[in-house]
Amino acid sequence: MALTFEHWNPKTAQRFKKFIPTKGIDGFLGIRIDDVTPGQLVASFEVSDEMITMIGNMHGGCLSAFCDHVLGVVMYPVMPEGSWAATTEFKINLLKPVSGGTCTASAEIISMSRTTAVVRIDITNDDRLVAVAQGTCLIMTPKS
Amino acid sequence: MALTFEHWNPKTAQRFKKFIPTKGIDGFLGIRIDDVTPGQLVASFEVSDEMITMIGNMHGGCLSAFCDHVLGVVMYPVMPEGSWAATTEFKINLLKPVSGGTCTASAEIISMSRTTAVVRIDITNDDRLVAVAQGTCLIMTPKS
Amino acid sequence: MALTFEHWNPKTAQRFKKFIPTKGIDGFLGIRIDDVTPGQLVASFEVSDEMITMIGNMHGGCLSAFCDHVLGVVMYPVMPEGSWAATTEFKINLLKPVSGGTCTASAEIISMSRTTAVVRIDITNDDRLVAVAQGTCLIMTPKS
Amino acid sequence: MALTFEHWNPKTAQRFKKFIPTKGIDGFLGIRIDDVTPGQLVASFEVSDEMITMIGNMHGGCLSAFCDHVLGVVMYPVMPEGSWAATTEFKINLLKPVSGGTCTASAEIISMSRTTAVVRIDITNDDRLVAVAQGTCLIMTPKS
Repeated sequence: MALTFEHWNPKTAQRFKKFIPTKGIDGFLGIRIDDVTPGQLVASFEVSDEMITMIGNMHGGCLSAFCDHVLGVVMYPVMPEGSWAATTEFKINLLKPVSGGTCTASAEIISMSRTTAVVRIDITNDDRLVAVAQGTCLIMTPKS
Repeated sequence: MALTFEHWNPKTAQRFKKFIPTKGIDGFLGIRIDDVTPGQLVASFEVSDEMITMIGNMHGGCLSAFCDHVLGVVMYPVMPEGSWAATTEFKINLLKPVSGGTCTASAEIISMSRTTAVVRIDITNDDRLVAVAQGTCLIMTPKS
Repeated sequence: MALTFEHWNPKTAQRFKKFIPTKGIDGFLGIRIDDVTPGQLVASFEVSDEMITMIGNMHGGCLSAFCDHVLGVVMYPVMPEGSWAATTEFKINLLKPVSGGTCTASAEIISMSRTTAVVRIDITNDDRLVAVAQGTCLIMTPKS
Repeated sequence: MALTFEHWNPKTAQRFKKFIPTKGIDGFLGIRIDDVTPGQLVASFEVSDEMITMIGNMHGGCLSAFCDHVLGVVMYPVMPEGSWAATTEFKINLLKPVSGGTCTASAEIISMSRTTAVVRIDITNDDRLVAVAQGTCLIMTPKS
């Protein structure tokens, strides 16, 4: 049941892979886009001391912000040029605490119409599955 | 159907209200705890340029990280001393874009057992309801 | 932050209150619409032996089907005539087991645009809060 | 990252595959358990006229009740004898309308501890993906 996509913009995909965020919550986390294929995206960030709470684990908010981020980013290369994507809802299950290493998200578009898409995300931390999420992205296309 | 709580630690509540986060995702957002009563919490942060994406709106991840944060914090004053709380899952609906001003979360514990609690959160941005969330917190009590 | 609604069809509301479902999952559950006001709805059903599992509690699926049902029904009186509503996603927390009595859902539209609405639902069982849900409804208006 | 399970009861799995529900919401839907392996389950039901609403599509509540059902059932063969499982929360995205044919759910346990498990579910309708869900099951073990 792999999806096929009407649009695929490899330049957008390349631009994402080269992008180093210097501000914003993606800058705070230091999110890198590692790989982009039609409908799929792999992204990662290194857990820093800055993200660890008094309890000694990474703040869960880092993973939910990460989810929100990749949920939108996976959409751009498969939308018509000039469109933009906004997460409208998602649900996350935090499975295990994280205290260091690398967090890697694999996002996959599992359903897509002209106006909306449903995306699933797996987050691993050094090969342990630490979070899973599922959410909806709204697609806004430019008025012609 | 207001809940009553077996534990209530006003000192914890006071400490939260005075706390100014300097690191972590709560430090990045600059979350202040404005008010704490048994089972309820109001927290807020100012939207900064740092949080705005290229599209001109605040990154949605700021609101999901905010949710994750208040979901845990609302628990502390009503848990036995020495316990800790961890968000295990939540779902957020992002209702409207945010581009400035103050974001305020009202969190309420709507169900609580010895090991788990369900919390609901409303987030407003200058009097507009911009996000609603619902999630579960795990309560870990110290072994005696 | 109470919503105001552009459309309000009291006849639809009246028709719902008189409707006795004889088939479908609403017929299986025996859902009655008790009260309808703009953006709010109260509905209920009696727990029958038929719904009890081997463990002695009501099958949780009864409450999730109930949620899905009221999530759509609350929309009809506030949509343009001839529109239809479809639940696109929701999340439910099941708080307590149910083994008899009446289940009552209070649904409230908390955000609404021309194409979509977000609804929150509380389900009580004889005055105990037994489930809470939050979800999205798609609004389809007739082509003119 | 396939899970390994401490318990596996093939007799429970066999019993489920032979079970024909005559009452309850699983009886209403006519759910058959088609296949059970450690941590995975395939179940299905035939869409009947009884389940179709006035709009001509199957009531969405059938799919959410179906999810709730398989979320619990997938747990039994991998829990200690005498345990029982209860869905505590789940989230479902309804992707496409269903109007006939067979609905098939594939459920997979993606995380499991002694007290809790997270399960993902895909529902297809004659080879179209029509719903995806993700939720948590509580495991209650018999007191020894």
